[in-house]
Amino acid sequence: MTNIVLKVRGMSCNHCVNSIEGALKEIGAEGKVDLGDETVAVVFDENQLTLDAVKEAIEDQGYDVA
Amino acid sequence: MTNIVLKVRGMSCNHCVNSIEGALKEIGAEGKVDLGDETVAVVFDENQLTLDAVKEAIEDQGYDVA
Repeated sequence: MTNIVLKVRGMSCNHCVNSIEGALKEIGAEGKVDLGDETVAVVFDENQLTLDAVKEAIEDQGYDVA
Repeated sequence: MTNIVLKVRGMSCNHCVNSIEGALKEIGAEGKVDLGDETVAVVFDENQLTLDAVKEAIEDQGYDVA
């Protein structure tokens, strides 16, 4: 399993938390948003998913991954 | 019809806009959120709805009506 912490811009409220964590869950990853730090901690299986796919799932929700 | 502009705190993004405008639509009112001004302009039929019901619909989404 891979553990990464991504810097993500534009997350402002619990709706944002739910949309990002939900999108990650849909692709089989587990995400935890920290609004204060503007980060998303993601755990995923590198045999199933690429980091690019993880970033894309977040960006598709309308946020910028640094 | 009644037109009012309410000051609402806690609205931060498009998810918030959709949740508030959607909740107002559900009770038969029409709302337009202005994130910059932190206001919600609402049009409703005073024979069908009370101002309290309008405020409650917004508060039920997790926002404070001033």
